[in-house]
Amino acid sequence: MMQEDERFMWLALELARKGEGWVSPNPMVGAVIVKDGKIIGVGWHQRFGEKHAEVVAIEDAKQKGHDVRGATMYVTLEPCSYWGKQPPCADRIIEEGFKRVVVAMEDPNPLVAGRGIEKMTKAGVEVEVGVLEEKARKLNEIFIKYITTKMPFVSIKLALTLDGFIATENFSSQWITGEKARLKVQELRRRHMAIMVGSGTVLADDPRLNCRLENCPEKVKVILDRSARVAEAIKAGKRFKLFEDGRVIFFTERPELFEGIAEAYRITEPEEILRKLGELGIDSVLIEGGRIACEFLAFADKFYLFYGPKLFGNGIKPFECLKVESPNDAPMLEIESLERLGESFLVTAYPGDGDVQRNR
Amino acid sequence: MMQEDERFMWLALELARKGEGWVSPNPMVGAVIVKDGKIIGVGWHQRFGEKHAEVVAIEDAKQKGHDVRGATMYVTLEPCSYWGKQPPCADRIIEEGFKRVVVAMEDPNPLVAGRGIEKMTKAGVEVEVGVLEEKARKLNEIFIKYITTKMPFVSIKLALTLDGFIATENFSSQWITGEKARLKVQELRRRHMAIMVGSGTVLADDPRLNCRLENCPEKVKVILDRSARVAEAIKAGKRFKLFEDGRVIFFTERPELFEGIAEAYRITEPEEILRKLGELGIDSVLIEGGRIACEFLAFADKFYLFYGPKLFGNGIKPFECLKVESPNDAPMLEIESLERLGESFLVTAYPGDGDVQRNR
Repeated sequence: MMQEDERFMWLALELARKGEGWVSPNPMVGAVIVKDGKIIGVGWHQRFGEKHAEVVAIEDAKQKGHDVRGATMYVTLEPCSYWGKQPPCADRIIEEGFKRVVVAMEDPNPLVAGRGIEKMTKAGVEVEVGVLEEKARKLNEIFIKYITTKMPFVSIKLALTLDGFIATENFSSQWITGEKARLKVQELRRRHMAIMVGSGTVLADDPRLNCRLENCPEKVKVILDRSARVAEAIKAGKRFKLFEDGRVIFFTERPELFEGIAEAYRITEPEEILRKLGELGIDSVLIEGGRIACEFLAFADKFYLFYGPKLFGNGIKPFECLKVESPNDAPMLEIESLERLGESFLVTAYPGDGDVQRNR
Repeated sequence: MMQEDERFMWLALELARKGEGWVSPNPMVGAVIVKDGKIIGVGWHQRFGEKHAEVVAIEDAKQKGHDVRGATMYVTLEPCSYWGKQPPCADRIIEEGFKRVVVAMEDPNPLVAGRGIEKMTKAGVEVEVGVLEEKARKLNEIFIKYITTKMPFVSIKLALTLDGFIATENFSSQWITGEKARLKVQELRRRHMAIMVGSGTVLADDPRLNCRLENCPEKVKVILDRSARVAEAIKAGKRFKLFEDGRVIFFTERPELFEGIAEAYRITEPEEILRKLGELGIDSVLIEGGRIACEFLAFADKFYLFYGPKLFGNGIKPFECLKVESPNDAPMLEIESLERLGESFLVTAYPGDGDVQRNR
């Protein structure tokens, strides 16, 4: 029975992932309805503010002429118990007469936190919690961080040579990694609500900072521009591609220079920047390359390190702001996975053992 | 039939590997004798100067009471056709009445180079060449390089942080990688006849530079010590662990200072050092860490880059001697494999597209 539960939950998790990029800052949720060992309905939360996965699955089953009474609902997150933008799913599940509900993880949202499960259990529904819980937590790591701390999930993405440089000494960084790695970066952009770079990157490369995958929502572009160099360049007649789509937010010591150009805040401390982004409803930031990665190192929740098969010998170091005297004091990461991407590879890692925090 | 050939050749290759470290500068060779679909004898070249794999396998079969007449011999390298330290295997195979011989690869040794195959074919033995050839070539990449160029196969091994440093700024390099990575280094030492470091490493760490695996031959230790600092330290009363076992060879501008201490040559140019090592019968050198890796970069045949899950921010760069102006001029590597080793990982790579050569 357990194996069957895992199989259906696996499918529910796969369905959940289809909402990636579109549901934030909501969690990705998938649901599968099973009766007599057969799948009779599936659903996922498709877009922020729209129907929840459970309801989509119920409607899917009914539309196909099935009766959900006595069925089992597999759902990747605890069904909600309160009225938000949608009526509470726990109530709907009870009303529809489900016999059993299998939940991957409790909702970390303090407004739910077990209450949906409690409600269903009291109403006589058989509820099981924790099937593929770890996978569900990983899937919604962004949501979990944001809902519990109000601070965005911070990912640092870098493209390095095998000997650790993000650019040559004259700041040239073209083609460190290959085509497959660049495609992967687009996937990372889809996963995050905002992309952040420093003004140096904007001035040097004029990036669009958009997501070029099919069916990918517009990105919020966050620029740390302490001395408002981008504003000055614009006033001098320069145009930048990052304004072509999506919301653009500047953090600067001179917000007045951005009047009529873009949204700007007089905040330049990394922690304060993140707090402000959280207030603005931004659940996740992908920090891309450049030297600002080091400033945000202490706040990083995840690292995406792309290595291209080159040696520069010398050049720009990504974490030059770090002062490590002894190897024992070095920030540790915990490597989650290694992935070949053509001639390059990707190391995905989390901060390890609190050591990165220790250096704050 | 082809699949069966590959299966038996696979076994022969596995057997060949058992000679690793012991047969150099000979190739590792394995042999499997099959009759009526059944393995009746196996053998491998066990130690330099001793019996060849084919003969060991024939004796194994006979000892078990089998008749090899009409059987098939699977052997990872073309049987030899000349008298070396052992009689020619091709002749023996013909005499024993083998029906068929399956060979993974032609012998790159100019003294053999197809003549063994020719001899057997002329004698009416059915000979097939090229089964699992690529794997056989990789297995004997050291032998192939040495027999064809008389220069040793050069591997560069480094332990780096994720941001590319081999030590902190004050030269501390302890514990960049973990236990599993250190064990893997021992395997690399077994694979190479010599281990080379610079005098800086000897003076700072006093390494033994031996192979601590069970059943591992003594290593030749090669030290590049231009100004004979190790000799001076010894004269000042210091003792070094590297003298505890194995042959020790110094390359220095002042060989006279090593009289009564160790073998020393007045050679300090990387290419000349390698040529001399080749003359001395050394088929492979593992260059371990330190700054000499950069001096030998242009001669590297293989890279073993171990990455530990740390960030130093700043520190000692492994290839600082490289001058790369534009990413397009950077030496390219071709990554062969990625391997998780506990909390660390290993990138195995070859020089790619002649770019490393271009920087010579």
